[in-house]
Amino acid sequence: MAKQGVLTPQHEDFPRWYQDILNKAELADNGPVRGTMVIRPYGYALWERMQAEVDQRIKAAGADNAYFPLFIPESYLNRESDHVEGFSPELAVVTQGGGRELAEPVVVRPTSETIINAYFAKWVQSHRDLPLLINQWANVVRWEMRPRIFLRTTEFLWQEGHTAHATRQEAKDYAAMILHEVYQDFMESVLAIPVLIGYKTEAERFPGAINSMCLEGMMRDGKALQMGTSHELGQSFATMFDITFLDAEGNQAHVWQTSWGVSSRMVGGLIMAHGDDQGMVVPPRLAPLQVVVIAVRDADGVVDACHRLAKELTAAGVRAKVDDRTGTGFGRRATDWELKGVPVRLEIGPRDLEQDQATMVSRTGDDKQTISLAETTKRVESLLDDIQERILASATAWRDSQIADAATVAEVREAAATGFARIPWAKLGPEGEAVLAEDAVTVRCLQRPDGSLPHSGEESDLIAVCGRSY
Amino acid sequence: MAKQGVLTPQHEDFPRWYQDILNKAELADNGPVRGTMVIRPYGYALWERMQAEVDQRIKAAGADNAYFPLFIPESYLNRESDHVEGFSPELAVVTQGGGRELAEPVVVRPTSETIINAYFAKWVQSHRDLPLLINQWANVVRWEMRPRIFLRTTEFLWQEGHTAHATRQEAKDYAAMILHEVYQDFMESVLAIPVLIGYKTEAERFPGAINSMCLEGMMRDGKALQMGTSHELGQSFATMFDITFLDAEGNQAHVWQTSWGVSSRMVGGLIMAHGDDQGMVVPPRLAPLQVVVIAVRDADGVVDACHRLAKELTAAGVRAKVDDRTGTGFGRRATDWELKGVPVRLEIGPRDLEQDQATMVSRTGDDKQTISLAETTKRVESLLDDIQERILASATAWRDSQIADAATVAEVREAAATGFARIPWAKLGPEGEAVLAEDAVTVRCLQRPDGSLPHSGEESDLIAVCGRSY
Repeated sequence: MAKQGVLTPQHEDFPRWYQDILNKAELADNGPVRGTMVIRPYGYALWERMQAEVDQRIKAAGADNAYFPLFIPESYLNRESDHVEGFSPELAVVTQGGGRELAEPVVVRPTSETIINAYFAKWVQSHRDLPLLINQWANVVRWEMRPRIFLRTTEFLWQEGHTAHATRQEAKDYAAMILHEVYQDFMESVLAIPVLIGYKTEAERFPGAINSMCLEGMMRDGKALQMGTSHELGQSFATMFDITFLDAEGNQAHVWQTSWGVSSRMVGGLIMAHGDDQGMVVPPRLAPLQVVVIAVRDADGVVDACHRLAKELTAAGVRAKVDDRTGTGFGRRATDWELKGVPVRLEIGPRDLEQDQATMVSRTGDDKQTISLAETTKRVESLLDDIQERILASATAWRDSQIADAATVAEVREAAATGFARIPWAKLGPEGEAVLAEDAVTVRCLQRPDGSLPHSGEESDLIAVCGRSY
Repeated sequence: MAKQGVLTPQHEDFPRWYQDILNKAELADNGPVRGTMVIRPYGYALWERMQAEVDQRIKAAGADNAYFPLFIPESYLNRESDHVEGFSPELAVVTQGGGRELAEPVVVRPTSETIINAYFAKWVQSHRDLPLLINQWANVVRWEMRPRIFLRTTEFLWQEGHTAHATRQEAKDYAAMILHEVYQDFMESVLAIPVLIGYKTEAERFPGAINSMCLEGMMRDGKALQMGTSHELGQSFATMFDITFLDAEGNQAHVWQTSWGVSSRMVGGLIMAHGDDQGMVVPPRLAPLQVVVIAVRDADGVVDACHRLAKELTAAGVRAKVDDRTGTGFGRRATDWELKGVPVRLEIGPRDLEQDQATMVSRTGDDKQTISLAETTKRVESLLDDIQERILASATAWRDSQIADAATVAEVREAAATGFARIPWAKLGPEGEAVLAEDAVTVRCLQRPDGSLPHSGEESDLIAVCGRSY
């Protein structure tokens, strides 16, 4: 089937390939207000699946969902000086409400530390109220000068976790646990995106945090995407909002806090980590649609057979549906499903049906197989598992092939042109970091030589992973 | 157990009873910006369960979820004259973004007809693109002068469905189907709130609609709460946003549209439809927590036994958890769960355990029963079913007892002091409606004498159901 012309090839123009996918796979459009986006049903279905998987892990981590207001009094943001400095340039401000000028302008939340901590101060009294573990799914707004759908948008969807603990150690452990058990587990086992973990340098830290840990994925153009962050906030917000508790010994103390989030930018990451010149590649565990059963032609009970098969798959817990739009050419429909990255296509035509068989095609390989209808479910389930593993393996192999060890700033710059550079942080330092910034190369994270997460404050022998980023 | 003093009794001061429940059951707080609210974990868990049940029905109705921007250019709202007139007084307007004055002010969505239809115009070309069935879960903002948590808030959470169809009949049927199969079914079978259905008078119609259908619940103080609406929009937005399609005969035509929504105000409705002087009463099918297993004292394996029991219940699909906070008095904990309206309490103390039994208490009755641990799951499941039925039956009986037939405006006014009045619309008419409005009594809906939904435009023999409302 002719595939040329649907998408700009990646090697020709990666940003345009990305834009083509957004349009052709009907994922999202630009909104009318600069930097906003319209998430179309297929794009939103991907996000809904991400939400479901992340939410389940957050609940298992003991946090409860809640909802805080979109509107924050301007004065709240001013209370934490690093925080307000970090966010001021990006704020959207409401100055009129209900037909009048507001006495105090109201900020549309860029993140919710300030408003949530104002309530934590009310709710926390005693050590028995701790830990307080809250998560919220919400939209946030950060005015974006160089918007890019899913990756950098003025409004985006996310979850933000906010917790308060009795001790620094407990807060630190919780933030690291979220990083590993919620985010890394989700990204690697569901999104099939291998991530590098570490903490941010001071220059890249979240405004108001004492330690920002992160997960960095590599896209097919060699650039990094920050996929999620988990911060230790220390006692900065606790001090500003006066969140204190009576400890077991009867002393008043400030709480220790964390905040952590992942957002709809993961949809962009999914597209760019796995996509190819034919379109998206969606890992089966995430896929809103795992199997499409295509009726090749409307003849001799073909459509009925497709529905029977889809029903059987659905009953077995496979997310399947039928494409019986036989008025549209088969080739065009197959190309459409390929564009959308559906992991498995089952194609049934009159001749297949005569022989009680279907053609099974995987999105990730050339393995077109003829299978008997009787064993479809078993074969599909096993193929879905294979595809999941294959996608992660391929993303990992490619990512690793694009990482180079570097010994000088010049070598880092060279390696970052096509991927990531690893250099001892002791050699690079904040000075080298500043030099790299001139070429838009940043330290994505600091990690131990074996790739594991350093403790906050741990400084010796760290490796700086550098790259260009979204 | 002493119950006095926890809540203001309903008959003494209903609004204060409501406010007390919000605080004591830890459902929600006022936000810092006037009219906004903080939805606390238990309040949000109720909303999450509502979302899950409604979302499932919306998907079964064939609509796909999507997401449109929070920010709408002011000019979009101005395109539909009734619509802008209806919403102008309630708008929140962003005039600064990214540190600058915006060239065109941006409105925070009060509802999304305008922005969604601007995209429908792009997406709909041919009759093959129809029907287009979209739903969105989102926050919306309507500046509120007399805010009340969950019932009228400046920001609230909702779903809004938006559809486009080839014919008026199809749009009309779809809007009515949503009313019955999504909303009424959910409200009656899950929320256990009986609803009156009908269409709104012209005075109460949604700005821009040609027919607004609604579902009205009765609260424990005899006032009405509009629980949801489903509108036929006719071709007004289609004309303003130029949403046309090529029909099967090759002619260009405008689409016919619907929009429909339910919101977080349903949480307020849940509280006020079933609550009593001991607190909330949550129907089992909705309840985030159906059974709490209370360890009376921490002695002789009681806590372990509670966890075993909760595990067994959870495995059977019952939403159960253990209260093992034995450091807090049993009476206080029992009162707390009663306040939160948890349908069933299982209480286990050392003596119960010795005899392999538990005390099972239902939130809705005095039926305290001793049951054997071996048959707990079976007994609990059957009690949950009973409670669900009992709550609906009791709300229905009470609602019906507060409805009176009236023949004059004076009689309507009198009946509306304690409930709903039914009067032939032919007798009341827009003039009578205007007179009633002076006493804050409104026509909640027009329905057929048998309570069924009239067709839009159907006018003869209709009954006006009148009442005070939230």
